[in-house]
Amino acid sequence: MNNPMNTAAHPERTREEWQHLDRQHHLHPFTDFKELAGKGSRIISRAEGAYVWDVDGHQILDGMAGLWCVNVGYGRKEIADAVYTQMQQLPYYNNFFQTAHPPAIELARQLTELAPRFKQVFFTGSGSEANDTVLRMIWRYWQLQDQPQRRVVISRKNAYHGSTLGGASLGGFGVVHEQMGTLIPDIVHINQPYWYGEGQDMSPEEFGLLRARELRDTIEEIGADKVAAFIGEPIQGAGGVIIPPATYWPEIQKICDEYGILLVTDEVICGFGRTGEWFGADYFGVKPDLMPVAKGITSGYIPLGGVMVSERVSDVLMGDAGEFYHGFTYSGHPVACAAALANLAILRQEHLVTRIRDDIGPYLQQQLRTLQAHPLVGEVRGLGLFGAIELVADKASHRRFDSKQGVGMRCREHCFQNGLIMRAVSDTMIIAPPFILSHAQVDELVSKAWKCLDLTARSIAG
Amino acid sequence: MNNPMNTAAHPERTREEWQHLDRQHHLHPFTDFKELAGKGSRIISRAEGAYVWDVDGHQILDGMAGLWCVNVGYGRKEIADAVYTQMQQLPYYNNFFQTAHPPAIELARQLTELAPRFKQVFFTGSGSEANDTVLRMIWRYWQLQDQPQRRVVISRKNAYHGSTLGGASLGGFGVVHEQMGTLIPDIVHINQPYWYGEGQDMSPEEFGLLRARELRDTIEEIGADKVAAFIGEPIQGAGGVIIPPATYWPEIQKICDEYGILLVTDEVICGFGRTGEWFGADYFGVKPDLMPVAKGITSGYIPLGGVMVSERVSDVLMGDAGEFYHGFTYSGHPVACAAALANLAILRQEHLVTRIRDDIGPYLQQQLRTLQAHPLVGEVRGLGLFGAIELVADKASHRRFDSKQGVGMRCREHCFQNGLIMRAVSDTMIIAPPFILSHAQVDELVSKAWKCLDLTARSIAG
Ligand SMILES: Cc1ncc(COP(=O)(O)O)c(C=O)c1O
Ligand SMILES: Cc1ncc(COP(=O)(O)O)c(C=O)c1O
Repeated sequence: MNNPMNTAAHPERTREEWQHLDRQHHLHPFTDFKELAGKGSRIISRAEGAYVWDVDGHQILDGMAGLWCVNVGYGRKEIADAVYTQMQQLPYYNNFFQTAHPPAIELARQLTELAPRFKQVFFTGSGSEANDTVLRMIWRYWQLQDQPQRRVVISRKNAYHGSTLGGASLGGFGVVHEQMGTLIPDIVHINQPYWYGEGQDMSPEEFGLLRARELRDTIEEIGADKVAAFIGEPIQGAGGVIIPPATYWPEIQKICDEYGILLVTDEVICGFGRTGEWFGADYFGVKPDLMPVAKGITSGYIPLGGVMVSERVSDVLMGDAGEFYHGFTYSGHPVACAAALANLAILRQEHLVTRIRDDIGPYLQQQLRTLQAHPLVGEVRGLGLFGAIELVADKASHRRFDSKQGVGMRCREHCFQNGLIMRAVSDTMIIAPPFILSHAQVDELVSKAWKCLDLTARSIAG
Repeated sequence: MNNPMNTAAHPERTREEWQHLDRQHHLHPFTDFKELAGKGSRIISRAEGAYVWDVDGHQILDGMAGLWCVNVGYGRKEIADAVYTQMQQLPYYNNFFQTAHPPAIELARQLTELAPRFKQVFFTGSGSEANDTVLRMIWRYWQLQDQPQRRVVISRKNAYHGSTLGGASLGGFGVVHEQMGTLIPDIVHINQPYWYGEGQDMSPEEFGLLRARELRDTIEEIGADKVAAFIGEPIQGAGGVIIPPATYWPEIQKICDEYGILLVTDEVICGFGRTGEWFGADYFGVKPDLMPVAKGITSGYIPLGGVMVSERVSDVLMGDAGEFYHGFTYSGHPVACAAALANLAILRQEHLVTRIRDDIGPYLQQQLRTLQAHPLVGEVRGLGLFGAIELVADKASHRRFDSKQGVGMRCREHCFQNGLIMRAVSDTMIIAPPFILSHAQVDELVSKAWKCLDLTARSIAG
């Protein structure tokens, strides 16, 4: 694209004009509207590869792949072409009323090929809708198994599962629950396997077991015959790239098996390769009964989500169950499915998942670890193309900053000013770059990060 | 498009092959999976204007505009072009973390221009997510007004507001609630203004008032200080194209004003012109505080939804409210917004909304009324490009068929076989054709409908 502004879709305006209109008319997700109106938004107008540009022409390395989704990088003409063709062929049709269309069917087939323990796919439009669908399926499954009293879904504190009322109830953010003022009934939260934050008085292995065994204790407390399922992100994303100790998931699997409850891994972030395996469940060797997916399924190019359904569940739903009264207008949207098919073709043809496992993942992890030497850094952790950098007030004791200082936010600001997007989760800086990152771009990311850590340290001192 | 199958996105297959894969891997929305596996899906592979074609080449007039959404008709190159350009410019970026992009801002601006009592837009990916957002906003609004005890949202029986747990709880379908086994707390359902089905012992005007006044009685019963909002579709769509008597909405408005509760019109179907006005609220002259939208915003070409927020609510949310902890990865997706902008341009340039009001709407309504003469028809009603045909066992007494006979479903089957898509809601046949329908296509629709009513009558008798 030569023209930096798409004049077909909207007129050319200055940054100030865009900021003004944005303030006037656009309520952003997860935002303090008043604060933003005071500052004005950063206006992103184009992107290519691993970079985005703002309207003033500043080039920024996108360490977050959009929002954990633009895995194949920006500007992939293959996806645009597939979408363009599909839009002229069949821009929309629904899968209600006993109709279907080739893109949804072919995508369902390919997904079950990628994740062979899953025989069926139910499509949604987002990760949140996928998790609402998971709840509906869990409850329907136990109704049909003549155990309708099995209602409780056990999730975790500091989990993120979306912003529908279902997703937000499954999620473990207290501030969200307060604003909702109510939760969906029958959702219970146990502690997370966050070793650096909560477990440093023991070994990671011991801590992983301890936190997994809370699941057993909680099942026993509630009554085993009342528990329906456990849900967890293989690696917690929005909670701060929390990678459970190696002991955690095998123990969770064991407990789910023992009590016969359904196991759900939320693969909205881990799915489609970020760990170096196709799904987080593959990486950790667990066998989920349901897998919600979204984001990486299309690399974010067109909204799409879904739930992968194992035979255990689909055999029941497909038995003498009558109609499953659930679905979305855009369930299996043909254009979204066409985008997903083109995206999967890129992932396969360019071997991007094995590249994460064997090449760019290890290189990123190695280079990222050099930041451990920085005075502000308590821990660097990561895996595949996930990374987290814990900022601390005292490196030796791991003492954290007073949250009022907003150190993470300051660091995020310095990054943006200096051409790097990192996200701040309190004082944990996190990254999840596109899979097409080059070795040189890893170096650029890490050297910019070091520079911004310096600037952050200086701004705290000053 | 010359090639009937998009070979870029998926291979060519026979109908039997598609049906086989569909059965194996694809769980459809609102479907009895076992029944469908037995029959096999109808495979829709392309579309143009007001027609869709199945893989066998059968041409079918789409009387439902997909699922109340393909308002500008299929094959609109303008939208495909806008999407293609945007995808190469910026295929995704988020609006979290104080960033924004031109397509979302420009769309927010245009939407507030179309609906001038709304100053702000919060984007979502679907109508369901829009209604979950509505609930979050309603509750947050009253928290910030120091009335956190205002929690109850009053909705209606036989309403449809989506399939998230929030949307499905607001909705008034008992079978859905049973399968969920639980509802979101604080949602209460009152009776609907369905005169033909429930009010024939009085005049429509009296009945409209009666059903509206249930709102007052319910508020008094619950306690006025506990009620937060009322939500209703201006015309109930999925419930069977239920058009309230003229007395209904003004009385609802009066009661909401009197008690100071928020009024929400769910414009997912009515919005963007189907009544002949831009929004259902305009048609009925009501002044909602929040308006969820979706479907027609992009004519279904790319998934998108949103909530239009009036000054009453946005002033509070934008005050000293802190962060609103709510949002979706695809809130304000740039490609979806580009599709919406192109769609709105078509609606404006081709004067499609006034065409419904002044030309094709009246013509459809007039022609549709000729079906009233058919022996199977109890009532024909409609407005703009909405239509409903009530099938009855006895025309004089309006006695209905035994639901076990599945008369509506039979009629739907005959329609499909004979090149017409109508939807069956029990024994009410409903239509919501694309706005670009020609006069000749109205004639085609009505004559095919008559023929299929004949076939249905014969199959019942036989
Ligand atoms: C693990 C996980 N699940 C679900 C979601 C919700 O997805 P969406 O924002 O598409 O609704 C997210 C979004 O970040 C996520 O990270
Ligand atoms: C009035 C109304 N609200 C909400 C929805 C839900 O929209 P979606 O299917 O996009 O989630 C629908 C869908 O038909 C609807 O008709």
